[in-house]
Amino acid sequence: MKKDIKKIVLAYSGGLDTSVMIQWLKENYDNPEIIAVSGDVGQADELEGLEEKALKTGASKFYALDLKDAFVEDIIFPCLKANAVYENVYLLGTAFARPIIGKGLVDIAIQEGADAICHGCTGKGNDQVRFELAIKAFAPDMHIIAPWRTWELKSRDDEIEYAEKHNIPLKINRETNYSKDKNVWHLSHEGLDLEDPMNEPKYDDILEMGVTPENAPDVPTYIELEFEKGIPVALDGKKMKGQDLLLALNEVGGKNGIGIIDMVENRLVGMKSRGVYETPGGTILYKAHELLETITLDKDTQHFKQHVGIKFGELLYNGLWFTPLREALSAFADKTSETVNGTVKLKLYKGNITSAGISSPDTLYSEQIASFGEDDSYDQNDSAGFINLFGLPIKVKAMQDAKKQK
Amino acid sequence: MKKDIKKIVLAYSGGLDTSVMIQWLKENYDNPEIIAVSGDVGQADELEGLEEKALKTGASKFYALDLKDAFVEDIIFPCLKANAVYENVYLLGTAFARPIIGKGLVDIAIQEGADAICHGCTGKGNDQVRFELAIKAFAPDMHIIAPWRTWELKSRDDEIEYAEKHNIPLKINRETNYSKDKNVWHLSHEGLDLEDPMNEPKYDDILEMGVTPENAPDVPTYIELEFEKGIPVALDGKKMKGQDLLLALNEVGGKNGIGIIDMVENRLVGMKSRGVYETPGGTILYKAHELLETITLDKDTQHFKQHVGIKFGELLYNGLWFTPLREALSAFADKTSETVNGTVKLKLYKGNITSAGISSPDTLYSEQIASFGEDDSYDQNDSAGFINLFGLPIKVKAMQDAKKQK
Amino acid sequence: MKKDIKKIVLAYSGGLDTSVMIQWLKENYDNPEIIAVSGDVGQADELEGLEEKALKTGASKFYALDLKDAFVEDIIFPCLKANAVYENVYLLGTAFARPIIGKGLVDIAIQEGADAICHGCTGKGNDQVRFELAIKAFAPDMHIIAPWRTWELKSRDDEIEYAEKHNIPLKINRETNYSKDKNVWHLSHEGLDLEDPMNEPKYDDILEMGVTPENAPDVPTYIELEFEKGIPVALDGKKMKGQDLLLALNEVGGKNGIGIIDMVENRLVGMKSRGVYETPGGTILYKAHELLETITLDKDTQHFKQHVGIKFGELLYNGLWFTPLREALSAFADKTSETVNGTVKLKLYKGNITSAGISSPDTLYSEQIASFGEDDSYDQNDSAGFINLFGLPIKVKAMQDAKKQK
Amino acid sequence: MKKDIKKIVLAYSGGLDTSVMIQWLKENYDNPEIIAVSGDVGQADELEGLEEKALKTGASKFYALDLKDAFVEDIIFPCLKANAVYENVYLLGTAFARPIIGKGLVDIAIQEGADAICHGCTGKGNDQVRFELAIKAFAPDMHIIAPWRTWELKSRDDEIEYAEKHNIPLKINRETNYSKDKNVWHLSHEGLDLEDPMNEPKYDDILEMGVTPENAPDVPTYIELEFEKGIPVALDGKKMKGQDLLLALNEVGGKNGIGIIDMVENRLVGMKSRGVYETPGGTILYKAHELLETITLDKDTQHFKQHVGIKFGELLYNGLWFTPLREALSAFADKTSETVNGTVKLKLYKGNITSAGISSPDTLYSEQIASFGEDDSYDQNDSAGFINLFGLPIKVKAMQDAKKQK
Repeated sequence: MKKDIKKIVLAYSGGLDTSVMIQWLKENYDNPEIIAVSGDVGQADELEGLEEKALKTGASKFYALDLKDAFVEDIIFPCLKANAVYENVYLLGTAFARPIIGKGLVDIAIQEGADAICHGCTGKGNDQVRFELAIKAFAPDMHIIAPWRTWELKSRDDEIEYAEKHNIPLKINRETNYSKDKNVWHLSHEGLDLEDPMNEPKYDDILEMGVTPENAPDVPTYIELEFEKGIPVALDGKKMKGQDLLLALNEVGGKNGIGIIDMVENRLVGMKSRGVYETPGGTILYKAHELLETITLDKDTQHFKQHVGIKFGELLYNGLWFTPLREALSAFADKTSETVNGTVKLKLYKGNITSAGISSPDTLYSEQIASFGEDDSYDQNDSAGFINLFGLPIKVKAMQDAKKQK
Repeated sequence: MKKDIKKIVLAYSGGLDTSVMIQWLKENYDNPEIIAVSGDVGQADELEGLEEKALKTGASKFYALDLKDAFVEDIIFPCLKANAVYENVYLLGTAFARPIIGKGLVDIAIQEGADAICHGCTGKGNDQVRFELAIKAFAPDMHIIAPWRTWELKSRDDEIEYAEKHNIPLKINRETNYSKDKNVWHLSHEGLDLEDPMNEPKYDDILEMGVTPENAPDVPTYIELEFEKGIPVALDGKKMKGQDLLLALNEVGGKNGIGIIDMVENRLVGMKSRGVYETPGGTILYKAHELLETITLDKDTQHFKQHVGIKFGELLYNGLWFTPLREALSAFADKTSETVNGTVKLKLYKGNITSAGISSPDTLYSEQIASFGEDDSYDQNDSAGFINLFGLPIKVKAMQDAKKQK
Repeated sequence: MKKDIKKIVLAYSGGLDTSVMIQWLKENYDNPEIIAVSGDVGQADELEGLEEKALKTGASKFYALDLKDAFVEDIIFPCLKANAVYENVYLLGTAFARPIIGKGLVDIAIQEGADAICHGCTGKGNDQVRFELAIKAFAPDMHIIAPWRTWELKSRDDEIEYAEKHNIPLKINRETNYSKDKNVWHLSHEGLDLEDPMNEPKYDDILEMGVTPENAPDVPTYIELEFEKGIPVALDGKKMKGQDLLLALNEVGGKNGIGIIDMVENRLVGMKSRGVYETPGGTILYKAHELLETITLDKDTQHFKQHVGIKFGELLYNGLWFTPLREALSAFADKTSETVNGTVKLKLYKGNITSAGISSPDTLYSEQIASFGEDDSYDQNDSAGFINLFGLPIKVKAMQDAKKQK
Repeated sequence: MKKDIKKIVLAYSGGLDTSVMIQWLKENYDNPEIIAVSGDVGQADELEGLEEKALKTGASKFYALDLKDAFVEDIIFPCLKANAVYENVYLLGTAFARPIIGKGLVDIAIQEGADAICHGCTGKGNDQVRFELAIKAFAPDMHIIAPWRTWELKSRDDEIEYAEKHNIPLKINRETNYSKDKNVWHLSHEGLDLEDPMNEPKYDDILEMGVTPENAPDVPTYIELEFEKGIPVALDGKKMKGQDLLLALNEVGGKNGIGIIDMVENRLVGMKSRGVYETPGGTILYKAHELLETITLDKDTQHFKQHVGIKFGELLYNGLWFTPLREALSAFADKTSETVNGTVKLKLYKGNITSAGISSPDTLYSEQIASFGEDDSYDQNDSAGFINLFGLPIKVKAMQDAKKQK
């Protein structure tokens, strides 16, 4: 254990873990100064009273970084443009937030001349990787402290005992809870009964951003989203900045039972884990964006972009945001997004999102050509030649096979 | 136009198109013998009375090929194992049926010594390609006749006039309808108001295999599916053969508003088109299979298989079933399916399919390792080393960048 | 056949084919005006005397388009940056030239108000596709005439007879020859004895841009190439513009037996064909560029770029240059090329290109870290943790397998 | 450090490292029994006298595993069938050998009831990963000891001092040397002056399996290889088993300066490293196999297989041989190899391998169709239709763009 640590920047949430860590760091590192830093990516009420709590539990300073707009504009929208999804269904809510918070920690650490950055992530999860990769990208030699990987506190109860023993002033209750991660894009739930994939989630206990389809209204809600270059700019005809638009979609989506997923995923650190995710607004945005792309991207681009979306999702999930490959794939996605302009009307009803109309000044859909009727731009007889050449390898193979059998 | 055609096998549906074609072929090819062939892939009532109709309108013979079991076992299930999907959402219902019907046509043509095969596909669609590629695979030199690409009848009205003029005995009505394709896996709808992507589909007029989510029951239905090597073998504990299982799922899925999609797709022949597809049972099967794979496939296999599923979907869509690449990808999928055994419980409710429990004797999910608690198989401190090496390229790049700036 | 054609732009090479075509077009289209256009992409001596010949054989006008710089800067270098290769070995020489010539034809056709564009490509090859796709991209409604696909002249002898009959003034000899395509990047050879893959090429008769390894000097030549953002800017310390640099590399490469390939390739139109290609300078450039990328791109980027290079090569080969996907992939390649700066020293010897030293201000190679000795940036013990997590899926699978066997 | 270790299986090479390790293990683990195991994958003379040396330096037992045939048949040939290559050029010689040796170690460890397996790999390399993943696949709970990652001996000199101090009887010389790895497939060289990519390799000092092109004969050598299902079965008409064939190719390839590569590669553990590899016979095999595939695989299969070869190479390089994905990709490659039958004639000359004739009973190359002349199977006019449909997306885009500009 590196010893000459005088000042530590701590990624601070105000929960049990990071409160205990302040004390633990002081004890285990010769009483260093602790700078508590909280990055606001839309976790809302969780942020209230943090400064007071941090100072009371031993931090010398507290920074609240307002990262909400940057989170939406600089991370979420570029991922939307790339159709980043992990393992078909996960919209990457936790993964999206980590790089920008990690960079925020480095900014403060450099400004404060800190010797180390400490985070409260478990040693079994993805977030430790995501935070640390962001730190390495901007401060490759920064010392990183991850107490959960090494300390003697092995459970929530251990932590509470430690807190009580050291008079750490916390409202403590010994009830356990799902492990959660919240931001403007999503809310995740892990642990407890969810750890067995045989258990159906108790959604009514779990959900916070919205309701189940069963509890959603019996009449549909229609909304209309406008996109410019792959980015949503207006909801129901009203121009809005990204964050506000997303909040409005969370509201309407949550109310209609949209965007609840339950999955077993493959963590980067080698294990499978199970989580329930709420992404009401994000799910609507992805669907609308995908629909708009079906009329504004040509086939070859759409098809190749499917592979890019998978790769982009993997990069994000693995914390590889600040990397040359992610940046190059964003250049690709930016280029393809130049024509992703237009309006998508959606019907939301009890968990379902249905297209109610797509239009675009850049549409590549030609009603005339698609129609069963005649048209000038398409000579049906061209198909005969097309099929003969497209099928030539099949024909040749069949001919050669026939020759062999003789 | 090739002239010495004495016997033609006609892919016969009994509709206006193929009824008119019998007469048209006789007229345009010096009165050849017409063998009408109908491949039964589960289009049900459409098949009744076909023989009588065929003979009455001029065919000399009629064959009804029962392809239902082969369709399910030899085409659908291999595609399910490969997770074949086209453009993220289309479950390939029409594409699935074409190769097996095409091969059936060749079998009869060879048996009957026919000179040509005729089909009633439009020159703008995918089905002409799919039929003809299947034909080329088994009879590379077979002459193919596709009247829609060349004849003078340019619309339904032209056809009806032609039929009346030639006393073709049909129950004719001049109402137009959506263009449909039906089989045991799905029902598709194209044309009319659907040709403008701005129009929301009139689902209540369109749907036949089920109802909209709005019209589905207010209480959920739970089902349980058992898989062996990637293939469904039992529903709610009852062993069933593939076709019966699929029919039962169509029933329960349709009732619960499952599997309705509305999409603009890219046809192989170069245009975008818009369709509404009903695939109630298929959608349930794909979802269940995907869920089961999340616990029975390892990460690397799952991730690579995403790309294979896309490719497999493209091959199917493009009619490339009887090809070496499709066969090799099936060998891949068969191998990965060896461990895809187990049971998936699902909740169906107004268009939503939700996991209600997954279990497998081959599960790779380890509750012990995934858990937040301690365990023997995973040393949390290993993460530190993992992250340092996984992040080494980022660190090196940051270090080299820093050096350059000096 | 469309009849009201008054003015035709003809892609003119001055060879037998296009000379005959002038007469044939006049005869078959009611004596239209013929504008002969020749695009100079470095085919050199083939271009001399073209204007005179065109006018003498019936053209009313002749345009010589100097496309050499644009060819190198706007097509070749972007492809080099993307590592575009077709089927592992083909450096796409013919494919590179077609889009830019096709666009040149459209430019003249629009300027001249022509009704049609005519090209002399065979109906079995790729070039017809490449030309026509470029034309469609800029003049989607332009009428295209491709006589080889329809005329009655089925062989070289037929053409010569036709020429003699119509007094077309040509130096005609009845010797046949390999079919060739030449530009500043390459020279291709097809036909005759090459049509049987069993025949070893008679290289001494075939080669024009250089010699065989056997005939190359017995002592090696060393050269040094400097790159900026993925583009070669200097040879042996001398800054040169792209075309001059390429010509110099052709000279030294050809002399040393570099860049001769013999391949059976898959044409877009469905058949396999066999060709011998000379690309002396291009082969050196690709090798140097690849070597430089090994120290300036990080692993993830390098690995993903392998797939991009394959796709880019397919797009080029298939004539899909002026397409959204190609442009988006170029945006990707441009981004990755930002760090591809530095110098590569190469030894050329009898067909071999060997690295003799690579250096870059943007190198990601760290001798300190790679070294077998100790260093501060890499703690060898980190590997233990890395391997445990990287191998966790293998361990879990083995554990679950063991459990099953009990 | 785990302490209750009574019996250790040591991967033993007889070199300085593993000789010192016997003593070091005894000292650091309370005098455990050491079982030395050497896996023979064709490293030849390195294996002589190993048993005596092992016992003399403290091992209680010595096993020599003859893995040569299994290495060639079970690892190398399946990789050849999949075209496994790492980063375009590396033929994976070291990576190929590790899984089979790793499994051999486990077999002995289980048979002997050992508590741990020890290997002599450095903590900076790939081989530690490859060995340990193979061990985990068959003995997930086996304790693994990797002294280089932890011990106090930081250099060759430290080791020699340690050996002298403990009277370990070795022929010791203090000269340093390139780090090498040898087997029947290849010989690798790393370290010393090679650690700087600016240094041209001193090939005359380095090469052991063959000579440089400069030192190769002035006249070419012709050879003929016969393949069955993707596997070489005969050389110059003589049927041979895999290992003998490979040895014969190493001989003729090495003599002709074939298969020398110099590369900077990306190690799995995050760093770039530089190596020189000799793979004379392997390079010939890969080239012959690739040539044969150009006439026996159809385009779609060939193109998709390019991506599979890259993935397969990455899996191998990363030690992921005993994994479900590798096995599934082998199922794919086995299927594609069913038609890879035939004969390839090659000319070897000073580092160059040139095709001198390819033939196959399963050829898909049709001289008739490829020819410039007329044929019955291909109607040139089909191209017009093909191009119109293939180019339809380009045309539609151009039309829509034109409409927008109005």
